[in-house]
Amino acid sequence: MRKRFHTIALIGKYQSAEVRALLLKLAHLLRERNLTPLLDTDTARNIGHTHLLSTDLVQIGQQADLAIIVGGDGTMLNIARQLSGSNVPLLGINQGRLGFLTDISAKQTDKVVNAILDGEYDIERRFLLDVTIKRGRHKLYHGCALNDVTLNRGSSGRLIEYEIEVDGHYVYCQRSDGVVVATPTGSTAYALSAGGPILHPSLSAVAIVPICPHTLTDRPIVINSAAHIRILLNSGDGAVVHVDGQIHLDVVDGDCLFIHRSRHMVTFLHPKGTNHYDTLREKLHWGQKL
Amino acid sequence: MRKRFHTIALIGKYQSAEVRALLLKLAHLLRERNLTPLLDTDTARNIGHTHLLSTDLVQIGQQADLAIIVGGDGTMLNIARQLSGSNVPLLGINQGRLGFLTDISAKQTDKVVNAILDGEYDIERRFLLDVTIKRGRHKLYHGCALNDVTLNRGSSGRLIEYEIEVDGHYVYCQRSDGVVVATPTGSTAYALSAGGPILHPSLSAVAIVPICPHTLTDRPIVINSAAHIRILLNSGDGAVVHVDGQIHLDVVDGDCLFIHRSRHMVTFLHPKGTNHYDTLREKLHWGQKL
Amino acid sequence: MRKRFHTIALIGKYQSAEVRALLLKLAHLLRERNLTPLLDTDTARNIGHTHLLSTDLVQIGQQADLAIIVGGDGTMLNIARQLSGSNVPLLGINQGRLGFLTDISAKQTDKVVNAILDGEYDIERRFLLDVTIKRGRHKLYHGCALNDVTLNRGSSGRLIEYEIEVDGHYVYCQRSDGVVVATPTGSTAYALSAGGPILHPSLSAVAIVPICPHTLTDRPIVINSAAHIRILLNSGDGAVVHVDGQIHLDVVDGDCLFIHRSRHMVTFLHPKGTNHYDTLREKLHWGQKL
Amino acid sequence: MRKRFHTIALIGKYQSAEVRALLLKLAHLLRERNLTPLLDTDTARNIGHTHLLSTDLVQIGQQADLAIIVGGDGTMLNIARQLSGSNVPLLGINQGRLGFLTDISAKQTDKVVNAILDGEYDIERRFLLDVTIKRGRHKLYHGCALNDVTLNRGSSGRLIEYEIEVDGHYVYCQRSDGVVVATPTGSTAYALSAGGPILHPSLSAVAIVPICPHTLTDRPIVINSAAHIRILLNSGDGAVVHVDGQIHLDVVDGDCLFIHRSRHMVTFLHPKGTNHYDTLREKLHWGQKL
Repeated sequence: MRKRFHTIALIGKYQSAEVRALLLKLAHLLRERNLTPLLDTDTARNIGHTHLLSTDLVQIGQQADLAIIVGGDGTMLNIARQLSGSNVPLLGINQGRLGFLTDISAKQTDKVVNAILDGEYDIERRFLLDVTIKRGRHKLYHGCALNDVTLNRGSSGRLIEYEIEVDGHYVYCQRSDGVVVATPTGSTAYALSAGGPILHPSLSAVAIVPICPHTLTDRPIVINSAAHIRILLNSGDGAVVHVDGQIHLDVVDGDCLFIHRSRHMVTFLHPKGTNHYDTLREKLHWGQKL
Repeated sequence: MRKRFHTIALIGKYQSAEVRALLLKLAHLLRERNLTPLLDTDTARNIGHTHLLSTDLVQIGQQADLAIIVGGDGTMLNIARQLSGSNVPLLGINQGRLGFLTDISAKQTDKVVNAILDGEYDIERRFLLDVTIKRGRHKLYHGCALNDVTLNRGSSGRLIEYEIEVDGHYVYCQRSDGVVVATPTGSTAYALSAGGPILHPSLSAVAIVPICPHTLTDRPIVINSAAHIRILLNSGDGAVVHVDGQIHLDVVDGDCLFIHRSRHMVTFLHPKGTNHYDTLREKLHWGQKL
Repeated sequence: MRKRFHTIALIGKYQSAEVRALLLKLAHLLRERNLTPLLDTDTARNIGHTHLLSTDLVQIGQQADLAIIVGGDGTMLNIARQLSGSNVPLLGINQGRLGFLTDISAKQTDKVVNAILDGEYDIERRFLLDVTIKRGRHKLYHGCALNDVTLNRGSSGRLIEYEIEVDGHYVYCQRSDGVVVATPTGSTAYALSAGGPILHPSLSAVAIVPICPHTLTDRPIVINSAAHIRILLNSGDGAVVHVDGQIHLDVVDGDCLFIHRSRHMVTFLHPKGTNHYDTLREKLHWGQKL
Repeated sequence: MRKRFHTIALIGKYQSAEVRALLLKLAHLLRERNLTPLLDTDTARNIGHTHLLSTDLVQIGQQADLAIIVGGDGTMLNIARQLSGSNVPLLGINQGRLGFLTDISAKQTDKVVNAILDGEYDIERRFLLDVTIKRGRHKLYHGCALNDVTLNRGSSGRLIEYEIEVDGHYVYCQRSDGVVVATPTGSTAYALSAGGPILHPSLSAVAIVPICPHTLTDRPIVINSAAHIRILLNSGDGAVVHVDGQIHLDVVDGDCLFIHRSRHMVTFLHPKGTNHYDTLREKLHWGQKL
């Protein structure tokens, strides 16, 4: 069973001539198919005067049947988090090197978008993390992450120390540069640089990856995504929490992060036959069959 | 709902005076509770004349309500694989340093075994991998692994080359010393030395961990345990497949490994309140709360 | 040929009763041997009124024949840098777990210090790095490091980008959390956590160790300590340079680090027969002969 | 001061039409310059009838002023070891992807070889390891390695256990898949896959790199190349020693490897201006300046 698309959001983050041209081209393509393009407010401001309708992301979440994002993985992460409460599926078009989330090249826009509007697509659902930071009983932050939540020593010249509990069970007390809690989606981003494993997107799992841990046996752990993770910062002046590398929050000794699987999912549409291993092989320059 | 135990297998691998003494002590304990101890044939031979009943592992699989294994993780792995087709739960008693699977110290035998026989225990189920090795259409081997299946270059002085497919999707062609496919149970064994992540036992996942890969971006991948993995050995004279590090099979160019989750599970009994993170922390010398 | 000791500096960083007691005990021991104890100004202030002479580290560098440091590796690093222009040999006494640089336990103070004053010691010389940070032609900082110089992304949520040149040869442009340039002395400190190799102290070599590099093939490189290293920060708002993890300097895009071997050395005295491999084995919990 | 070349050995390992054509082209080029080409016996046999002189590698070591090797790094390693007792400089021409040791592409043969014969070249000297394997007092093997000496578990399904001593000092007892002792030349070969650091060729250092060690703190160590390394195999049925991945020797429990720097060096000629960092950047796909 395939969804019918009527109202389609067009979102592009940067004030560039290429993004503008591609968005207008997409708007034209949609209108030729009698579909309604809908810009988000920021995009409308960035690309200047057009006759296109525009509204904010909250409205887009309620009205759009599909959102096409023009940009890189960073733009997609940002929009995906904001639309995660809605059920709007996302499609990513990339003008540079293809990303993990923006896997359609600008050159193929017409062909791929038309095919998708014809119902020729694969659906992929990715889960998010729900993150709360508390100082005592006070909630400092509540939001969600598609890639990862990182506690990092920030500007401090010293290691930070923190304790991790999973589902109420004490895991360890660790001294390190920090720790990444990554979804499968985030497992190919920062967590990979920190030495974490690649998690297939179909896994209901998260990786807890220490960053330069003082204890050499502190290795990445993969746990069930249903688990509740609690990270207590014991000591770390200047420590920072990063959400998807895009939202940054200063924390102090005694602050606590509570991380668990969000009840929201993000839905991505891909061209039919898209396969995660092909993407990995290309992005990581893995060996081809000889 | 707790199981009632009547017939209890006693298994100990080595011809040692300590193992013999511990097994006889267990037999005595069982008879005092009006339970029936049942030695396996090898154990009976090893410990010499007793008045205890003995039978082979197939019969034990059919008759026993519980098997108590005295030894290290290696002994447990071996017995667990052989009893995996049955539903006999396993209990591991270790006379040396505690293992991941044999987590009851010999000193605590009386107390812990009595508690377990009283119904005070936690149940943990671990899945196995089903492994088939084929040469063309000919089946060279079929068996199961609780820890891991490793394809290794063996005595060859050269890297081996192989291709991996998952669920029919081509993953990569890799040159390396070999590759480990590990269950969560095996993730703390050889796969960890090869750079793999720790997988929580509750995860339905397996890790594919390359061993000293030539391509530095060939990192460990964690996939769903429901996946079907196919490994084709392209070239590797002298290559060997190791199952749980205990069964060894020579393979030649063109041989294929088919690995997927077994329909069997192994059931372990643990003292009430046993927690995998405590075990990890102790075995890996992770930091305690300061 | 062994040096004769007359004036001996006593240095202890913390305001603790134990440090005070140990310093007074050392002073007593020295006077019984007709040697002159000399406190540094900070130590004198910390331990309160005594009849001992005190002076600043510059004077100690000129007058002392030996400096005994009571504390951990952090205290030793700090003092060693400050005395590196002098030729005063250093001896480290540790009240807690032994360090790499403070390898005499408080319990053995009497025995070991007496033996050393009797001329029973091994001499070990360690080199330092000379570090200059420049903003255009302006010199922001000039100093030396015994362990390491680290360029780190600091509070930024993004990777930093920098270029490295060695002896005028372009090495690479890297995106990462940062990079550590470590001496053999520092190779067992932070650089080890970042994945660097252990360098034997006798090596005239430094390790360049990227921290969580985006490019997975960016591996640690070990180069000659005679090399001149230049690191240009291309982009990294909020980036920080850490010298021995103790001195912290904010840097901005375009700032340059110039690192080369200092013409100064630090001299450590050790109990006769001290061997670096024994220290490594103990500190890293390596396997003993079975 | 540059050497004058008169007699120039031409060596190519494989029976391929391309190698033959390139060797004949080189012979022609040399004769046009009134220089004497000299084939090695194996090469002469491989390429079939020609009017060129040929002799064995021992004679080449005595008579040639230069040896041009056509092939990959494997061929070069093999020839370099055999000619290491002579002072014949080596030049490597590669018909495929450039290697670390064979850094001249076949396409540039004429231009580069002429320039080198004109005296336009850089000289680089690389040291070798001297390896002796003993069983009790009996010498099983004595030879040299340009890349590495590896002790590996071979066909065994178990870890091997060995003890390492450096300069008579006990280092550790390790259980692992094996251990690589690599020169700077070998540091970019197998040792890199095993997690070792890159050593700059100008370093007088060797890396001891454990392969999948059981103890996670057993990290690569870099020591002075003047050191004498002794590796005692405690237990490892089926273990093998590999020299440069090309010579393979079965060893048994109690066998000992003695490794130290050879008194011989290998001399490579490179086109003027060749720089190791350029080679690393290309071979490892490191980031270029943006």
